[in-house]
Amino acid sequence: MSIIIQPAAQPVPESKPAVPSHQPIRAAILGATGYAGRELLLGLARHPSARVARLISSGRGGAQPFPIEQAHPRLRTPTGLPGGQCEPWSPDILEDLGEADVVFLATPHEVSHRWIPKLLEHGTRVIDLSGAFRLKDAGAYPRWYGFSHKELAALAEAIYGLPELNAEAVGGARLVANPGCYATSVILALAPLVRAGWIDMDRGIVCDAKSGASGAGREARDDLHFAEVNENCRAYSPLRHRHVPEIVQALGLDEPSFTFMPHLLPVTRGILSTVYVRLASQRDAAEVQSLYQTFYAGSPLVRVYSDGTLPEIQAVAYTPFADLGFALDEETRRLIIISALDNLGKGAATQAIQNMNLMFGLPQETGLLQAVGP
Amino acid sequence: MSIIIQPAAQPVPESKPAVPSHQPIRAAILGATGYAGRELLLGLARHPSARVARLISSGRGGAQPFPIEQAHPRLRTPTGLPGGQCEPWSPDILEDLGEADVVFLATPHEVSHRWIPKLLEHGTRVIDLSGAFRLKDAGAYPRWYGFSHKELAALAEAIYGLPELNAEAVGGARLVANPGCYATSVILALAPLVRAGWIDMDRGIVCDAKSGASGAGREARDDLHFAEVNENCRAYSPLRHRHVPEIVQALGLDEPSFTFMPHLLPVTRGILSTVYVRLASQRDAAEVQSLYQTFYAGSPLVRVYSDGTLPEIQAVAYTPFADLGFALDEETRRLIIISALDNLGKGAATQAIQNMNLMFGLPQETGLLQAVGP
Amino acid sequence: MSIIIQPAAQPVPESKPAVPSHQPIRAAILGATGYAGRELLLGLARHPSARVARLISSGRGGAQPFPIEQAHPRLRTPTGLPGGQCEPWSPDILEDLGEADVVFLATPHEVSHRWIPKLLEHGTRVIDLSGAFRLKDAGAYPRWYGFSHKELAALAEAIYGLPELNAEAVGGARLVANPGCYATSVILALAPLVRAGWIDMDRGIVCDAKSGASGAGREARDDLHFAEVNENCRAYSPLRHRHVPEIVQALGLDEPSFTFMPHLLPVTRGILSTVYVRLASQRDAAEVQSLYQTFYAGSPLVRVYSDGTLPEIQAVAYTPFADLGFALDEETRRLIIISALDNLGKGAATQAIQNMNLMFGLPQETGLLQAVGP
Amino acid sequence: MSIIIQPAAQPVPESKPAVPSHQPIRAAILGATGYAGRELLLGLARHPSARVARLISSGRGGAQPFPIEQAHPRLRTPTGLPGGQCEPWSPDILEDLGEADVVFLATPHEVSHRWIPKLLEHGTRVIDLSGAFRLKDAGAYPRWYGFSHKELAALAEAIYGLPELNAEAVGGARLVANPGCYATSVILALAPLVRAGWIDMDRGIVCDAKSGASGAGREARDDLHFAEVNENCRAYSPLRHRHVPEIVQALGLDEPSFTFMPHLLPVTRGILSTVYVRLASQRDAAEVQSLYQTFYAGSPLVRVYSDGTLPEIQAVAYTPFADLGFALDEETRRLIIISALDNLGKGAATQAIQNMNLMFGLPQETGLLQAVGP
Repeated sequence: MSIIIQPAAQPVPESKPAVPSHQPIRAAILGATGYAGRELLLGLARHPSARVARLISSGRGGAQPFPIEQAHPRLRTPTGLPGGQCEPWSPDILEDLGEADVVFLATPHEVSHRWIPKLLEHGTRVIDLSGAFRLKDAGAYPRWYGFSHKELAALAEAIYGLPELNAEAVGGARLVANPGCYATSVILALAPLVRAGWIDMDRGIVCDAKSGASGAGREARDDLHFAEVNENCRAYSPLRHRHVPEIVQALGLDEPSFTFMPHLLPVTRGILSTVYVRLASQRDAAEVQSLYQTFYAGSPLVRVYSDGTLPEIQAVAYTPFADLGFALDEETRRLIIISALDNLGKGAATQAIQNMNLMFGLPQETGLLQAVGP
Repeated sequence: MSIIIQPAAQPVPESKPAVPSHQPIRAAILGATGYAGRELLLGLARHPSARVARLISSGRGGAQPFPIEQAHPRLRTPTGLPGGQCEPWSPDILEDLGEADVVFLATPHEVSHRWIPKLLEHGTRVIDLSGAFRLKDAGAYPRWYGFSHKELAALAEAIYGLPELNAEAVGGARLVANPGCYATSVILALAPLVRAGWIDMDRGIVCDAKSGASGAGREARDDLHFAEVNENCRAYSPLRHRHVPEIVQALGLDEPSFTFMPHLLPVTRGILSTVYVRLASQRDAAEVQSLYQTFYAGSPLVRVYSDGTLPEIQAVAYTPFADLGFALDEETRRLIIISALDNLGKGAATQAIQNMNLMFGLPQETGLLQAVGP
Repeated sequence: MSIIIQPAAQPVPESKPAVPSHQPIRAAILGATGYAGRELLLGLARHPSARVARLISSGRGGAQPFPIEQAHPRLRTPTGLPGGQCEPWSPDILEDLGEADVVFLATPHEVSHRWIPKLLEHGTRVIDLSGAFRLKDAGAYPRWYGFSHKELAALAEAIYGLPELNAEAVGGARLVANPGCYATSVILALAPLVRAGWIDMDRGIVCDAKSGASGAGREARDDLHFAEVNENCRAYSPLRHRHVPEIVQALGLDEPSFTFMPHLLPVTRGILSTVYVRLASQRDAAEVQSLYQTFYAGSPLVRVYSDGTLPEIQAVAYTPFADLGFALDEETRRLIIISALDNLGKGAATQAIQNMNLMFGLPQETGLLQAVGP
Repeated sequence: MSIIIQPAAQPVPESKPAVPSHQPIRAAILGATGYAGRELLLGLARHPSARVARLISSGRGGAQPFPIEQAHPRLRTPTGLPGGQCEPWSPDILEDLGEADVVFLATPHEVSHRWIPKLLEHGTRVIDLSGAFRLKDAGAYPRWYGFSHKELAALAEAIYGLPELNAEAVGGARLVANPGCYATSVILALAPLVRAGWIDMDRGIVCDAKSGASGAGREARDDLHFAEVNENCRAYSPLRHRHVPEIVQALGLDEPSFTFMPHLLPVTRGILSTVYVRLASQRDAAEVQSLYQTFYAGSPLVRVYSDGTLPEIQAVAYTPFADLGFALDEETRRLIIISALDNLGKGAATQAIQNMNLMFGLPQETGLLQAVGP
């Protein structure tokens, strides 16, 4: 297993823009009717250098295009969105998509697995929000994803798109595997410590993560009925959530040393991860603070708290940020890291746009900060 | 259309008990895996004179009986419920059900329509929580329920089971049509005024009702996904909700004078109905208060507020009560009645048990008050 | 009582800009630590032609300035907001505020009442989000607001800032009284009908409005405790909510013909108003549709639904829009209008910025559409 | 520090009843207007052998008694509760309280600390829901509770009222310190493992706990405003929550080996604790299952899951149960225990009644099972 952690505060790669600077990036979205699809559309609509050229979905409606606002009432406008028609998916679209500069897929794993190699053949760049190209070890797919991976060339080429660790590689990628929402939350929480070798790995790492219900997607399911999620909190997938392998891959951990338990929260958006480690040697709070601030000094979408307060979901919902804070018991070397992000934002769509920015030579935060202020 | 309003503070009918007093009433529940089924089971389990003899469901699992706690985690016990197995529905069960003293159906309208006549043939009493036997006019079913009613004899025999209006008839019934949740809320709010002839009917009645999501049943639906109901409120079925005909039937109203608009609330349980009328002549608050208190003097499950406060959902959730309060502008004769109940309680399961009590010669509140105190 | 309804699709006034076009509008916010204050800050931070120059609050902290992110964790940035210090309120600030081009007050009614005349003396323009200058009749304040109005000159000068009715007057105003959240929702729902004279006023208007809890402000209150609002819905202030007089004033209604009942919803943001009228003469749905679309043709922040669906809170939360839809029973002439908006958006902060835009000669939607796309 | 774990499936002590069996236990509640007070009242009202004799509160109203339903709308009845008047607290009441067989205190720690010794002098038994008498080490109070403990005799006499560990001692107690809500949840999760010595204590124990907002009490607080808790989840009191010392005391742990982090959930009721340990030696799931089932065989209010599903808040809300389930990775010996309870039920009021039952020689579950069925 290769460790793909990169230097922390890496400069934005100076690759030359993939599109002439005076033209907007033409983007297509497959899976535009889901929650991540909606956030991609919103984010790209605000982006100064991108334009949504195609919206495609297999989820709703029949064979006819329909206004995307039927799927997303928030997107209604008096006059209709420019390009606001959503087309039903059909393999015939593949050829047309070659005209897009970038295609975002917010689709089931198997759909991404099947069609992305064909999209690459047509010469477009691809950002995949599914898990189909996240794991370097093709042999891991049956266990974690329930299908056999047959697209080994694309898998080998895919870059794991966590810009805080991997910006340079993303900049040169044709295919970016956008990380999972939990994975983003946990990797960002742990990367500075793992890289610095500060964790007592014999004691292991415990990660207790909590996610809002939009993270489960928009499909109707018995266990996502309002009355089942509301006034409830439940753990699921103990020790076998499919974000585990991408976390251990990205951090270079041994799987048994990393215990991960996700929980479903009665909120729509947001992930809060509480990560428990024991430091290998004694450090004070200022050292931990400094480690994180240095690591993320070049990362405009990671906010390291410096005042002893702890991140919470409301601080990050509807924003592109991942927030990090910690509590340390110096004497016993117990360190608890709290990591918060919006599962549809930094955990999905805004991270995908951050990757697009890098792929097209733009500052990674381009178009993403308006959501929350200057 | 016949008006079925009965004298207000009617005595509990003195019919002789249908089962020997030393034996518990043997009850069966069809539709035990839904939300109303669960509340029936809970309510009957607490009842001093009833015993749940059979649990049946077509909703979950296959051909084998399964522990009901699989459908309702709240019902787990260390030792298992007595009789806690839920059987899959099959017409073969009909014959066995003849041994039950009463069968509750918390089933789709069409299921109730089809099987209830057969249950009556087998000699059991039936309490139906669906709408299949609520409307006296069989011709209204295609419009409001989308199917043609073919069981005219059973329909003619069915008694609309709102005990506050109809206790005596319920006491002698073989088939009780348990009212709709909205209908119960609205009829209780209006009956004293309508019966007294106090409403200026030329001005019409406006009823704005709000319900929690459990009222829509437990089936997975796109629009009941947690993320669609949470942080939302929406109106639906304007002027065409299927509880309208049973309300106008029970109150003897002309349909055009009754405007009803339901809304979906982001809560699990509860209905709040806000009913707007203009009084035909000037009344003061004490007169209105007295009208309601007199009307419901014999109704232990209706709580008329006398201190100027207004009912709210939290006052009734998890209780068998319907709460009524009002605000009056004496000068302009505008009267607003607020009616609150638990859609799974007085709007469904506890009302069904209240009907059972009457059918078996028990005080109507038997076994129902423990949920909230003395 | 004067009727202040203006022609519907009014052009943006061509007043010359109050600040040179190459300089940003310097804005100050009094009451920056509340919910409306936060939204003002977010909205102005996104605005292409404005700059937040001062943040002031009396609500938190003591005598020292503090980073505004202490009050609003969502506003954290790695580097701190430019001008992100919030100053404690003191009358000494008044003089300094003369340097601001516009001061927004998101303050209690009495605070606005007391200090706005002094701000006007210092030559700044003022947009007041309280109710202190909304009612033209000073004599109405004791009844509705509980204090005597002593600032008659400022009251006479104040313009009721509902741009869809009043854009030209706003364009020339020094003092804009930003409408109440419920009032905005209801006036927009009714203005086309009232102005056209289509309502049978003998039958009266019933408005059942539902609001999220942020509408009650950020102060700790027993009845706003999470456990009191959650899983609840309750009516309050029957027939006596203080938004009633501004609604009847803006629409030229007789108060007794307008029945208004607000309800508290267990959501953070959003208002849904359900408005019930009887039309004076028969109209078909197309006519009603056309009336609304024509009326709001020049209003980019009002979205009139044309496909028979009804607005809901999720369609407008976190947007600057007011959404309108309706259901009509042509035969009985019953019309139900549904109006949805974000109480912190079009019901407060984004409407205040819309007013600022008009006061400074900008298109009214400037800087407001990014929140939701093109 | 003494370890107070008792044999697991202890028999109910055969002390003779403290009141003649034909008379109900006369109970008084101090702090009747809070959430725990309400649940005590509900629970005692259902109890077959108890009667609420006095309701007392200092929290609301002035010097006059008031109907308790003013504080708890759910408790309204048409006729008023028997004894439903709530008296304002005054030291004069102490003498009267001597007539009560038992006094429940749902009061602030300092209030309990001050008045309980006086209540004991008056000869009544006391069950204290505060933390004032939970810690055996008086010297720990300044650090964890912020006050100096001066009532050493009462502290020495107090019995920690977790019946699953301590039933016999509770049976003979005059003063029971009812455990904290988190503490109950965590101790029940860990006791079988700790007692069996199965945990690799060098690796430590991590407990990530999540609680609903009613656990913070009913006082208005900025951070309990609906809009602050809703759509949020946040960690608080890292490594310093005041339930830590009672957990380590009850289990005989070293504090540094026990890491506890509480989180606030946007639900009203319920605690979910996720507890992470490493087993000292290899065990299979059947062994763990057996350990728990044996330990809790005599504990009717603990439900050990045997089917691999995990407890969730909805399974326990509004019930008196604590539910336990687990996930084990046999190879790596990682064991995750999930513990769920209602913080107002088994975490407070129903546990207090369970203790009362033991103190008066009744089966511990007397009167508690009706809430959820047989």
